[in-house]
Amino acid sequence: MRDVAIIGTGMIRFGELWTKTLRTMWAEAALAALDDAGIKKVDMMTIGCMSSGLFTGQEHLASMLADELGMAGTPATRVESACASGGLAVRAGFAEVASGLSDVVLVTGVEKMTDVDGGDATYALGTAADQQWEGFHGITFPGLYAMLARVHMQKYGTTIEQLAQVAVKNHANGLKNPNAQYHLKLDIDGVLNSTMVADPLHLMDCSPVTDGAAAMVLTTVEKAKELCPGRPIIKITGSGLATDTIQLANRANHTELNAVRLAGERAYAMAGRKASDIDLVEVHDCFTIAEIMATEALGFFEVGQGGMAIEKGLTQIGGQIPVNPSGGLKSKGHPVGATGVAQVVEIASHLWKRAGDRQVEGAKIGMAQNMGGSGGSSVVHIMEVE
Amino acid sequence: MRDVAIIGTGMIRFGELWTKTLRTMWAEAALAALDDAGIKKVDMMTIGCMSSGLFTGQEHLASMLADELGMAGTPATRVESACASGGLAVRAGFAEVASGLSDVVLVTGVEKMTDVDGGDATYALGTAADQQWEGFHGITFPGLYAMLARVHMQKYGTTIEQLAQVAVKNHANGLKNPNAQYHLKLDIDGVLNSTMVADPLHLMDCSPVTDGAAAMVLTTVEKAKELCPGRPIIKITGSGLATDTIQLANRANHTELNAVRLAGERAYAMAGRKASDIDLVEVHDCFTIAEIMATEALGFFEVGQGGMAIEKGLTQIGGQIPVNPSGGLKSKGHPVGATGVAQVVEIASHLWKRAGDRQVEGAKIGMAQNMGGSGGSSVVHIMEVE
Repeated sequence: MRDVAIIGTGMIRFGELWTKTLRTMWAEAALAALDDAGIKKVDMMTIGCMSSGLFTGQEHLASMLADELGMAGTPATRVESACASGGLAVRAGFAEVASGLSDVVLVTGVEKMTDVDGGDATYALGTAADQQWEGFHGITFPGLYAMLARVHMQKYGTTIEQLAQVAVKNHANGLKNPNAQYHLKLDIDGVLNSTMVADPLHLMDCSPVTDGAAAMVLTTVEKAKELCPGRPIIKITGSGLATDTIQLANRANHTELNAVRLAGERAYAMAGRKASDIDLVEVHDCFTIAEIMATEALGFFEVGQGGMAIEKGLTQIGGQIPVNPSGGLKSKGHPVGATGVAQVVEIASHLWKRAGDRQVEGAKIGMAQNMGGSGGSSVVHIMEVE
Repeated sequence: MRDVAIIGTGMIRFGELWTKTLRTMWAEAALAALDDAGIKKVDMMTIGCMSSGLFTGQEHLASMLADELGMAGTPATRVESACASGGLAVRAGFAEVASGLSDVVLVTGVEKMTDVDGGDATYALGTAADQQWEGFHGITFPGLYAMLARVHMQKYGTTIEQLAQVAVKNHANGLKNPNAQYHLKLDIDGVLNSTMVADPLHLMDCSPVTDGAAAMVLTTVEKAKELCPGRPIIKITGSGLATDTIQLANRANHTELNAVRLAGERAYAMAGRKASDIDLVEVHDCFTIAEIMATEALGFFEVGQGGMAIEKGLTQIGGQIPVNPSGGLKSKGHPVGATGVAQVVEIASHLWKRAGDRQVEGAKIGMAQNMGGSGGSSVVHIMEVE
C-alpha cells in the first residue's frame, strides 16, 4: 500500500447560498483545492454527496462535475453513506492512491440542501434512517438523537447543561472560522431558551440545513514532495470505516456509537496510534449529544464521561483534546455530503499552521470522524504532519 | 498493487419482482455469491445503486444492507454513477483489495425500480441526464439515444434493421439465460412493428425497467487459492473508468462514445491486452444503438462498422466476438445499479464454463462494459481465467 498525502485543500463558506448551485459551489471548492496544490490536472475525482437526487433532482454527479471543471474524460466516482458521504469520498480517494490506480486524486464533498422546502429537506434527510422501520412511523433525526440523549442522561447523568455547553463551545470556535455558516455568540441560557425540537434537544442542540462544498488533493508522499516542495507533508496514516444497524431498534446498546468505535479502532490500528496521541479532532456533532458520544467512542474519555469532559472544558481549544475547533457541524454548518471532507480540510489547516485565530498550537496529529444517520456508519481518518 | 480474483458470484432472476423489496433481492444475491465462494464473512462490501432515494425513499444503503446480512459493523460503501453504478462497485471493490485495505470484499449491485409508477421511474432515470440543460426541456433517455442513432444512421448508413438485429440477437441469447427477465423469441418484424418510442427507436429497441440484484466476492489471487482450492482463478486484469459530458450538447462528436473508448483503452492498457484478445464481451445495450456504438468504441469494429457487424452475425455466440451472451440489458433486464455487476457475473460464468446452453466455448478472456446516462460515464473490466 502506497503512502498517501494531502497537498492542497479548499472550501467555500458554508451557508444558505441562494445564489449558488450544486455545480458552482462544487467547482469553487474544487478549484480552490487545485489552486492550493498548485496543479491543474488530476487522474481521478471522488465526490461525496448524500442525496442530490432528492435535494436537486440530479444524479450522475461524477460526470457532471468532472465536465463542469473542464475535465470530462477524467475517471470520477460518487460515493454515499448518508451524512458520512464526505468521509467516504476521502477513503475512496485514499484507496485509489494507495492501490496505485491513480497518482493524483481530487476528493470532494458537496450538498445543496436549500433548493427544496423544509418538509422536503426533512424527508430527504430521513432517508438516512430506516424508512421501513423508522421513517414509516414518522420519526426524523431530532427524535432519534433525542432518544439517544435520554438514554445517556438516564444511564450516566449527562445533563442538558452539558449538552448545551457543546453548542456554546462550538459556536465560540466558529466565531473564529471565516468559513462557518454562523458567527454568533451563544451562552447556555441561549441554548436552553431556544425552541424545544425533540425533548431534550433544543433548536440550538441541532446542526442546521446548509449548502456547501469542500475539496482536497491527495497524492503519494513521493509525488507530494515533487509537486509541493517546501510544504510540510501531511500523511493520511489511518483510514477506518464501519457500519452499524441504521435502525436504533436493532441495537443492543444505545449509549455507545458502535460504528464510531469500530471505525476509530481501525484507524488507530492502521496508524499505530492511540487516543492520547491525537492533538485535535473534528467529530460529527450533528446534535450536541453526538459530539459527547463520539468523544467517548473514539476513546478520548471513558464511556459516560463525555458530558463531564465538556463541562470541565477539556474539549476547548487549549484543553486536553480540542474537539471541533472549526465550530463543528453546529456552527460551521452541515451540508451533509461536504461535511466529512470539510473536517479533513480543517485538520489540515491546523497541521499546516494556517488556522488563524483558532489554531491549535503544536498540532502534529489530527483526527476526523464523520457519521451517517443515527450512527449507522462512520468514517475516521488520522492525519500526521512530518 | 495486489492481484485481484473473483471467487464467487450470485444473482437473482431479473424481472418485475412485486413480492421482493430492495433488501430481500439484495440479500438473496449476496448470499448466493457468499455461498458460491464458500465463505461466511467479508472484510468490506460495496453496493452499486443509482437512485434508491428516488425509487424507494431510502439512502444509506451500505449500512442497511450490511445489517440485513447480519454483518453490521463491516465496512461498506455505496457508489453511484447512474446506470454505471454496478461497474463502479466492481472497481471500488477492486481498489479495496488491490490497495491492501481489505482482503475479501463483497461487491454488489441492486435497483428496485417498480415500486414507483412509470412517470416517477422516468423522472428518476432522467436524473442521469443533465437536469438543467436536458431534463428541463422535457427530453428523456429514449429521445437522447434516438438522436445518437439518427446521427449514426446519417453518417454511416446504419439501418433500423441493423438496430433491430441487436434486439433479435440479444433476445435469442436471453432465451438461454434462466436469469433473464424476458424469455421471448423475437424477429426483425417484431421489433419494427413494435410501438415507436422515439424515432428511430421502437419499444423493442429499448431495455426495460427492472428489479434485480447481483453480487460477487473478490479477494487476492493468493487468498483465492486458499479459499477455493481447485477452482480456476479468474483475475481482474484491467479496470478502466472514464467520464464524458453528461449532456449531449457539450460533445464535439456524437457518433462515438468517448467515455467508453477511454475506459476501454485504460482497461486494455492495464491488462496488456487488445480487442482481438477478448473472447466475449458484455456491453451496455440500454438501447440497441448503444450496443453498436459500444462495440465500435471498444475497438471490436471500426467506427461506423458496428451496424454491419451485427448484420453479418459477427457478434452472435460462435461469431467473431460474442456480444451480450447473457441477453444483455435488452433481454436480461436493466435494474440500473445491478447491471454492471451482473455483466461481470456473466463473464465469470463463461470463464468457469458454467454458462449452460449459452456457453462461449473456449472463453479465456472476457470484458464487461457498463455505462451511465447517454455515455456520460463508463466502466470497463477485463477478466482472465488461468
